[in-house]
Amino acid sequence: MLIFARAMAVSLVAALAVLPSMSEAETSPPAAQTVRARDLGVPFDGTPGPLNAITDVPGIEVGHTTLIAGEGKLVTGKGPVRTGVTAILPRGKTYDPVYAGWHALNGNGELTGTTWVEESGWLEGPVMITNTHSVGTVRDSTIEWAHQRKFFAPLAGEPDTFWMLPVVGETYDGDLSDINGFHVKKEHVFAALDGAKGGPVAEGNVGGGTGMITHGFKGGIGTSSRVVTTGGGEFTVGVLVQSNYGIRDTFTVAGVPVGREITDLTATYGDHNQETGSIIIVIATDAPLLPHQLKRVAQRATMGVARNGSYASNGSGDIFIAFSTGNPGAWSREETAKVASLSNDSLSPIFRATVEATEEAVINALVAAKTMTGINGNTAHAIPHDRLQAALRKYGRLVEQTGPAPKN
Amino acid sequence: MLIFARAMAVSLVAALAVLPSMSEAETSPPAAQTVRARDLGVPFDGTPGPLNAITDVPGIEVGHTTLIAGEGKLVTGKGPVRTGVTAILPRGKTYDPVYAGWHALNGNGELTGTTWVEESGWLEGPVMITNTHSVGTVRDSTIEWAHQRKFFAPLAGEPDTFWMLPVVGETYDGDLSDINGFHVKKEHVFAALDGAKGGPVAEGNVGGGTGMITHGFKGGIGTSSRVVTTGGGEFTVGVLVQSNYGIRDTFTVAGVPVGREITDLTATYGDHNQETGSIIIVIATDAPLLPHQLKRVAQRATMGVARNGSYASNGSGDIFIAFSTGNPGAWSREETAKVASLSNDSLSPIFRATVEATEEAVINALVAAKTMTGINGNTAHAIPHDRLQAALRKYGRLVEQTGPAPKN
Amino acid sequence: MLIFARAMAVSLVAALAVLPSMSEAETSPPAAQTVRARDLGVPFDGTPGPLNAITDVPGIEVGHTTLIAGEGKLVTGKGPVRTGVTAILPRGKTYDPVYAGWHALNGNGELTGTTWVEESGWLEGPVMITNTHSVGTVRDSTIEWAHQRKFFAPLAGEPDTFWMLPVVGETYDGDLSDINGFHVKKEHVFAALDGAKGGPVAEGNVGGGTGMITHGFKGGIGTSSRVVTTGGGEFTVGVLVQSNYGIRDTFTVAGVPVGREITDLTATYGDHNQETGSIIIVIATDAPLLPHQLKRVAQRATMGVARNGSYASNGSGDIFIAFSTGNPGAWSREETAKVASLSNDSLSPIFRATVEATEEAVINALVAAKTMTGINGNTAHAIPHDRLQAALRKYGRLVEQTGPAPKN
Amino acid sequence: MLIFARAMAVSLVAALAVLPSMSEAETSPPAAQTVRARDLGVPFDGTPGPLNAITDVPGIEVGHTTLIAGEGKLVTGKGPVRTGVTAILPRGKTYDPVYAGWHALNGNGELTGTTWVEESGWLEGPVMITNTHSVGTVRDSTIEWAHQRKFFAPLAGEPDTFWMLPVVGETYDGDLSDINGFHVKKEHVFAALDGAKGGPVAEGNVGGGTGMITHGFKGGIGTSSRVVTTGGGEFTVGVLVQSNYGIRDTFTVAGVPVGREITDLTATYGDHNQETGSIIIVIATDAPLLPHQLKRVAQRATMGVARNGSYASNGSGDIFIAFSTGNPGAWSREETAKVASLSNDSLSPIFRATVEATEEAVINALVAAKTMTGINGNTAHAIPHDRLQAALRKYGRLVEQTGPAPKN
Repeated sequence: MLIFARAMAVSLVAALAVLPSMSEAETSPPAAQTVRARDLGVPFDGTPGPLNAITDVPGIEVGHTTLIAGEGKLVTGKGPVRTGVTAILPRGKTYDPVYAGWHALNGNGELTGTTWVEESGWLEGPVMITNTHSVGTVRDSTIEWAHQRKFFAPLAGEPDTFWMLPVVGETYDGDLSDINGFHVKKEHVFAALDGAKGGPVAEGNVGGGTGMITHGFKGGIGTSSRVVTTGGGEFTVGVLVQSNYGIRDTFTVAGVPVGREITDLTATYGDHNQETGSIIIVIATDAPLLPHQLKRVAQRATMGVARNGSYASNGSGDIFIAFSTGNPGAWSREETAKVASLSNDSLSPIFRATVEATEEAVINALVAAKTMTGINGNTAHAIPHDRLQAALRKYGRLVEQTGPAPKN
Repeated sequence: MLIFARAMAVSLVAALAVLPSMSEAETSPPAAQTVRARDLGVPFDGTPGPLNAITDVPGIEVGHTTLIAGEGKLVTGKGPVRTGVTAILPRGKTYDPVYAGWHALNGNGELTGTTWVEESGWLEGPVMITNTHSVGTVRDSTIEWAHQRKFFAPLAGEPDTFWMLPVVGETYDGDLSDINGFHVKKEHVFAALDGAKGGPVAEGNVGGGTGMITHGFKGGIGTSSRVVTTGGGEFTVGVLVQSNYGIRDTFTVAGVPVGREITDLTATYGDHNQETGSIIIVIATDAPLLPHQLKRVAQRATMGVARNGSYASNGSGDIFIAFSTGNPGAWSREETAKVASLSNDSLSPIFRATVEATEEAVINALVAAKTMTGINGNTAHAIPHDRLQAALRKYGRLVEQTGPAPKN
Repeated sequence: MLIFARAMAVSLVAALAVLPSMSEAETSPPAAQTVRARDLGVPFDGTPGPLNAITDVPGIEVGHTTLIAGEGKLVTGKGPVRTGVTAILPRGKTYDPVYAGWHALNGNGELTGTTWVEESGWLEGPVMITNTHSVGTVRDSTIEWAHQRKFFAPLAGEPDTFWMLPVVGETYDGDLSDINGFHVKKEHVFAALDGAKGGPVAEGNVGGGTGMITHGFKGGIGTSSRVVTTGGGEFTVGVLVQSNYGIRDTFTVAGVPVGREITDLTATYGDHNQETGSIIIVIATDAPLLPHQLKRVAQRATMGVARNGSYASNGSGDIFIAFSTGNPGAWSREETAKVASLSNDSLSPIFRATVEATEEAVINALVAAKTMTGINGNTAHAIPHDRLQAALRKYGRLVEQTGPAPKN
Repeated sequence: MLIFARAMAVSLVAALAVLPSMSEAETSPPAAQTVRARDLGVPFDGTPGPLNAITDVPGIEVGHTTLIAGEGKLVTGKGPVRTGVTAILPRGKTYDPVYAGWHALNGNGELTGTTWVEESGWLEGPVMITNTHSVGTVRDSTIEWAHQRKFFAPLAGEPDTFWMLPVVGETYDGDLSDINGFHVKKEHVFAALDGAKGGPVAEGNVGGGTGMITHGFKGGIGTSSRVVTTGGGEFTVGVLVQSNYGIRDTFTVAGVPVGREITDLTATYGDHNQETGSIIIVIATDAPLLPHQLKRVAQRATMGVARNGSYASNGSGDIFIAFSTGNPGAWSREETAKVASLSNDSLSPIFRATVEATEEAVINALVAAKTMTGINGNTAHAIPHDRLQAALRKYGRLVEQTGPAPKN
């Protein structure tokens, strides 16, 4: 009976959410011709990995469930809906905790599970990102998913006494989406987790980033990576952002004051000289780092958004989490781990890579996002690629392309 | 349709939960003859307020929803159920944020919303406590409650763009209750919030504390208070705990090694020489304290549980939050607040009161709790009052009663 | 013998230090024609105060003692000496503690006294800055100065039981100065404190900044300020840095990659593609902020140095302290304070001002610093003003001057 | 003149300090017949190591310099002097950093170097403890000692660019000693470091603890240890305290309200119902713990002092540092370390041992300390051993001795 009732609820949501197209968006790789910031000639520093994505760190899987349904006036509980959920699984579907650390640049937001990350040094499951008012559903549903999928420590024994403290972050999409309608449901969380995979990562209006804005343009999910040599090895740093922060006036790209070159095309709602959004940043690396070192890495994301013009306003939930896949199998209830730890003096290239990849991930989110109209006709405009290029060219910073023009 | 589906779900839960008796438990004051630790002759220090409860701090309201249903073998999703939710509202149903601070003694647990409490210095709504796997439901439902009840800042304007980052804590009751059945529902959260009130506070097997154990005895909700004179005024410190921590061996009451005097009557499950539980502690005061001072107060709860024999084992989620009702009306989006701040040198009596009231609140939880049998016949025994008294008497610490014997 | 040796060391330093000229350097205002970054046409954001210095915040006094003596090969204990000490007094010589908060971006450094700042919320005396190995002398000498000058709370009563936990920071100048010769002495600390005053602040090779480098150029002391309107009032944010961090490659000025335009003139010592330095940043404001709000302000300094190309390498001691002069007389041992607190929503302009003033203070330090040769002939070059302007011009970012050319 | 005055002061101190006898006190082991708390029949939990001292952790060396000189009225700069300095070297005179973490229960005190301990995870040299106003001298002198003794990393290369951020803590002895006379000098610091050794540790009125009081009795240095089996190995936890905290009223020993049994013999100065002192606690273990785990261990010291009756008053500088000798050779500038890390689930016995050893170390400090008279005739009384035993006996808690009576 309960199951029946649930199923009915699901079908209602499914009707709103147009689940088929959603699934499609989620499972199809970004088209090969997708334009990213680097394709437009933005001069970023450092060397990205093959995908220029968090999934360049081996083993990481990302899944999005995107919910887009309805148009017109907001009716709480009905829509319109412009939201979703994104799942980042450090070691895919394998239960094998990773060392982690976190940092709040400005804690006007939520990242559940951080108290245990801080205490234990471990991230024991996925990092989930959604809208502000769906954190709870995503949290409990992640537990239910783990319970059903038997995603837990063998030594924890019987699923009956299984417990979990999921890590779930958020940014606010209530200017485009019916946030108080609580449209993210258990099945959407399961879909994001089950559908997570390696390879290219969809950016822009997808997953938890569906309804977000950044520096007054349409924002959302973005990713980037760097490959660095340090401490006797070559390591990858990958970053994924759900970007929803910033005012137009301070917006800079590669040092160019783009926010003052493109002063129109601001969102049709809100006051975008009042920074009120947020950004969740997930940093992954295969460099073998300990928890206290990862806490340091997490703080470096601050300097990436600073390069883009953030000053972390009071209304911003700027919360960052970093983890390392570098010591597989280290977690145990009983065994003393033998772990590798990069020397502190070898960390600086990792720090620099984090700053650079964060900077680029945000611009990637902007470049990928498309103009979106949500509740009450509120519209957030995509940054026009040609005008971004024009601004960079004006200040002598555009890397002119020799091949065919990128497609917008 | 959605409403209908929901209603069906509710009726299912209602059947399990025996809601009527639950409501009764929740709304009726503790019977006048309720025995508390002090009645038994435990020699606590300091002067409690009239109720010896967190509600001695004016304006504070507490509500419990208690879910007890089913017996026998665990069937995930069906029961048995021994859980609930407790709501503490700093200023009742009035939206008027209070200064707050928090501390993790051992962060193997969750207290959502703390990132914003730490950053902003404000607690903007209730503190909710439930079981580990219902934190999400309680969180989102608290948002929905606030949205429906219009519990938000006038200046926030339209409810349409209302947002909230609720504070929800938990301890684990999965040894007595079907924790992976997710039995706490929205209506239970609404009931705890709507039913919250001042006056005596039910203790023991109620609300979020329903399925908890402490030092191997049945635990749960406990409360206590102290009245102190400092900084030119008389102030109250109130404490409420959801107590689920501790091993028997180190258990002390007023310095007496009770855990070595009563070595039987341990829970029939688990290994209670392995401390794995948790304790959430809420400290309230009407002394006008600033956020950084409240963070200091929160840390003092550590020393209360230490007096009872805790050493904060790895498995313990010992998380504390303190708030002050002392500056009503101080919160504003725009206005510069004029606030009072007790001098630091006047804080020591507040600190001492926090330690004492925490110590007593835990023993009150134990004394109030009744023996409970949950999933798979697992049983947690109430501490026998007579043997507690005998132990205190043996070590010369019992305050012998002159009146009639307390009722057990 | 030891005593004799000490006395000789002291007299040597006294001879080396040419104290009179040192005093002169310290007490004379910067010549009216001093060139600062803004004079060169660097396009900073925001509106500075009249002095564009931390002393725009009323009541703040700054004093420097500069020690420059000897040339040639390092002989530990003899020289050459290129060091000093800087004192920032929040309310001049008046004992009246200010609310404060601090943040470590990368804690490879020392700022004594922060444990009590964090706990109490108060900064009870000056902020001192010196070289890494003189922190102790400066700390104890600051106590002795306070004791002798009766700089303490009236209620503390007799100087006999006076105690103090001074705040002293540092950066490393051992590449230019005989840091293991411990040349900063009590009298130098007294001189910096006694000589502190309002008005223009000397920048570059002065005080604690004497022997510092930044992004491979000669660095040192820099300052800047911003005036903002928020929360119904006009407030000033002032910043003073002792800047000794950064590699050349990532150095940017107003978004222009100056470090790649001027790749020569790196210091003749060390590997300046390995960031190893540090920066101490002091932020002052007259906006009435509480300790937890000031902690937030302190963290914003991160975003100022990020704009200039820092990524906070492992070797960097990037430690920031912020204080507010906004609630004079609030500190008391006994009285409950009545204090003003700017609303959180009014903080964003303060945050932005902190980022901007930090960015400019660093560039001011660079522009003011002169080429310096220290131990073993090690030389740090001043940034050439004309080439800095050329780089800004190349990228369309120079604010062309209409008046007479600035003097280099 | 100033120089001359300094030289005189030094010679005065030298005369006062009676350096030879001081050295003697420092180098002689505690007499075999020294009575410790356990000898008196105090019923502590757990199993101590052979010495019941921090030096049970292999490799740890402890040295004290004790300065006792003069009598009568305080003349600042002359005396009387009742102070000193204590050095704890994690791996003796060998440069091989240890993982470390720290915690402030109440940060009204100083522990320099903690910012880098927190950031890096390493303690790179000794932990020094002295009086509040000598922290600076001890800090810089520790650098000079390390420089002269070539106590630094081989890879750091030339001593010329050697740098150090020493860890130095303090408690306040200005009620017994001329604290503003700055009597601790470089030679005293060198003596404590050079004289440090393994084996029994002198307790009571020695080293940094010379002039301290605790719960209104004479306090000072105390130590204790525990041996535990966990995580597949046997490990030692050692604790050393410099104890100067607490009021008489709340003083408990093994749960017995000793402070209410012995209400006389309070110090002849101050108001010992106002807790104003401090306690520095150093925890060492050979269990292989990572920095974030050691931070957790450090916080557990809170629960040890709570057992003795502390509530961490506003005036208390209760600062704790924990380190592990368990991964020798792990520190390197370049090499990736291979380190062992005890599982989190194996930590609880370490936590419990920390609480127990802290509790006992404080009582050991009290039991070892002798009555002392300092400035202006101020006197702190030793706790009378017979009355302590009587109190324990009264409450049925004394472990009656079968051998000869302990000597007081």
